[in-house]
Amino acid sequence: MSSARKSFTVDGDFRMHRAGHLESPTLAYETWGELNAAKDNAILLFSGLSPSAHAASSELDMSPGWWEDMIGSGLPIDTDNYYLICVNSLGSCFGSTGPASIDPQTGERYRLKFPVLTLEDVAEAAFLVVNHLGVKCLHTVIGCSMGGMSGLAYCLRHPDTVRRYVSISSAARALPFSIAVRSLQREMIRSDPKWMKGNYEPGDPPITGQRLARKLGMITYRSAEEWALRFGRERSTDHARIEDQFVAEFSVESYLENRANKFSGAFDPNCYLYLSHASDLFDLAEYGGSLAAGFKRLKLDKTLVVGVRTDILFPIQQQRELAEGFATVCSDTRLAELDCIRGHDSFLVDMDAFRPEICEFFESCCD
Amino acid sequence: MSSARKSFTVDGDFRMHRAGHLESPTLAYETWGELNAAKDNAILLFSGLSPSAHAASSELDMSPGWWEDMIGSGLPIDTDNYYLICVNSLGSCFGSTGPASIDPQTGERYRLKFPVLTLEDVAEAAFLVVNHLGVKCLHTVIGCSMGGMSGLAYCLRHPDTVRRYVSISSAARALPFSIAVRSLQREMIRSDPKWMKGNYEPGDPPITGQRLARKLGMITYRSAEEWALRFGRERSTDHARIEDQFVAEFSVESYLENRANKFSGAFDPNCYLYLSHASDLFDLAEYGGSLAAGFKRLKLDKTLVVGVRTDILFPIQQQRELAEGFATVCSDTRLAELDCIRGHDSFLVDMDAFRPEICEFFESCCD
Repeated sequence: MSSARKSFTVDGDFRMHRAGHLESPTLAYETWGELNAAKDNAILLFSGLSPSAHAASSELDMSPGWWEDMIGSGLPIDTDNYYLICVNSLGSCFGSTGPASIDPQTGERYRLKFPVLTLEDVAEAAFLVVNHLGVKCLHTVIGCSMGGMSGLAYCLRHPDTVRRYVSISSAARALPFSIAVRSLQREMIRSDPKWMKGNYEPGDPPITGQRLARKLGMITYRSAEEWALRFGRERSTDHARIEDQFVAEFSVESYLENRANKFSGAFDPNCYLYLSHASDLFDLAEYGGSLAAGFKRLKLDKTLVVGVRTDILFPIQQQRELAEGFATVCSDTRLAELDCIRGHDSFLVDMDAFRPEICEFFESCCD
Repeated sequence: MSSARKSFTVDGDFRMHRAGHLESPTLAYETWGELNAAKDNAILLFSGLSPSAHAASSELDMSPGWWEDMIGSGLPIDTDNYYLICVNSLGSCFGSTGPASIDPQTGERYRLKFPVLTLEDVAEAAFLVVNHLGVKCLHTVIGCSMGGMSGLAYCLRHPDTVRRYVSISSAARALPFSIAVRSLQREMIRSDPKWMKGNYEPGDPPITGQRLARKLGMITYRSAEEWALRFGRERSTDHARIEDQFVAEFSVESYLENRANKFSGAFDPNCYLYLSHASDLFDLAEYGGSLAAGFKRLKLDKTLVVGVRTDILFPIQQQRELAEGFATVCSDTRLAELDCIRGHDSFLVDMDAFRPEICEFFESCCD
């Protein structure tokens, strides 16, 4: 299959937000639609922790993207009218430079020698791609989950280059509950003897730790309500359990097992550790000393905050906090509290609920 | 320190609910107060998964018990008036026979040769102790967390021997969310190479897996709201982190680390696996084919259901389900929905909220 992925290599050093630098990192990205003559129809999309830049299919790559039902001709992010850019996060492993990439200084993989990653670095890397594409001012930045915080970092550091902001199931900073969950996921990977302090062979990763971390992810990405309806106390049909009482007895256990096995191996464990940690570190209050001061640094004409009432990782109070903060500096702010049952993952799987909000947002943009 | 722990050894075989049997198992228990002449003042208390029978201090053992502030002279479970019995759950490791005990058939520890454990077995073992103590009819059964389901099993199997029932942060059966959490905790232990399919040396248990499982426990026993208030984004003062970016950066991470290290090693991992699995298996609907039919088998004069709105493991809907079910067969049923912030653990740590409910329950008992 042909690839729609393009890549941009930074000319020279990329200075990291906390400390250290990367020598000429590469950033993978995809685009959809065309930049207009006025160059004012560009949208930048930040993904969550695990997806690539392949947010939607295109003629060059027909495989479905992670937000396939949202992006395209006649869809809420209408590529007949807009020029959409999605960058694989710096630190990830789908074409952008990250801990799994070769350090040009040593000829070896960075592994844990990769400098501490922050979402400010993810934002800054995307800023370089946007500039490379000749876009001086973005029509809208959209960020989903972790990407919502990357998007906030972008708006905070380049307030004059973004007109509108859409936050999807994200937050101004992580709550201790979410930090605890992610910290435990990282510990699961680090506790797997095969992790070898980050020096695992690429073909022999800490798959056990990854599987455990993914299962905890699934538990927190979905909702208890969904599973009660979906599985109840249905028994697994996997008869391997007869031999071992602790193997999946209930359908919910088999479901987690199947999903975790699918994901593990698809994402580099060190990259996961870095991006997960970056999600904990971001804090809007670091811009001025308080959330209120942070919001005051934004210059936005229009904002939309969409969140889900069953989300336990980025709970509804955090959506309200964001919307209330945006409203202090931007009168055209809308909060959409959705009643989706599938928790944090709703923005990926309950498109019927999310599409109307995104659609309405772009339809009500008056240029 | 002297011990208040007594023990009772079953004379002959104990047949397990699912399959298999135990040869003359021992049951550890403690009692407080005196059985009156009419023998109608006995209360049986079922603990959660991890505590011993030491629910409160006494002259024989002054160390604080796990429900210290609830039990004693002048306290809600008033040992001046009542005779309280607490049995260490069958399958546990604090004096009662469990997977860590010696199998008299082989002279070796049972380990995974211990038969599948259910809460029906926990209830049946307690029933033998109650009979041994000369009590034909219990004034009240109280069950906390997992113990609430053990208590239900007791009432279902011996309906004519229990007059009143108090359920504390428990349920009629586990939801798939709770099953998923416990299944993942078990997998963490089983994935630790030191578990060795249950054949670890007692002095060298799978401590890494236990620590991970305990941390996930803490995350689900407490509430996001509590941690937001308690920790916010406070940084850890543990400066070891400077050497490793993935070591505890936030206070919530240090807190989990300290708590998990305290617990791990105190509980036998195989016993934990068996009791955790038993918690998943219990289902009131197995008594007659539906929850409604299960409730109909109960013969209770008075019930109380206490639950907490921030509990995610035994959520408030399950408390309502219990109370509604009890009300179909027992007109004197009360549901207390508490606004405690500390989630499932509130019944152990927020005694000011729980004491009045238990107090009122016993004060309103008319004999």
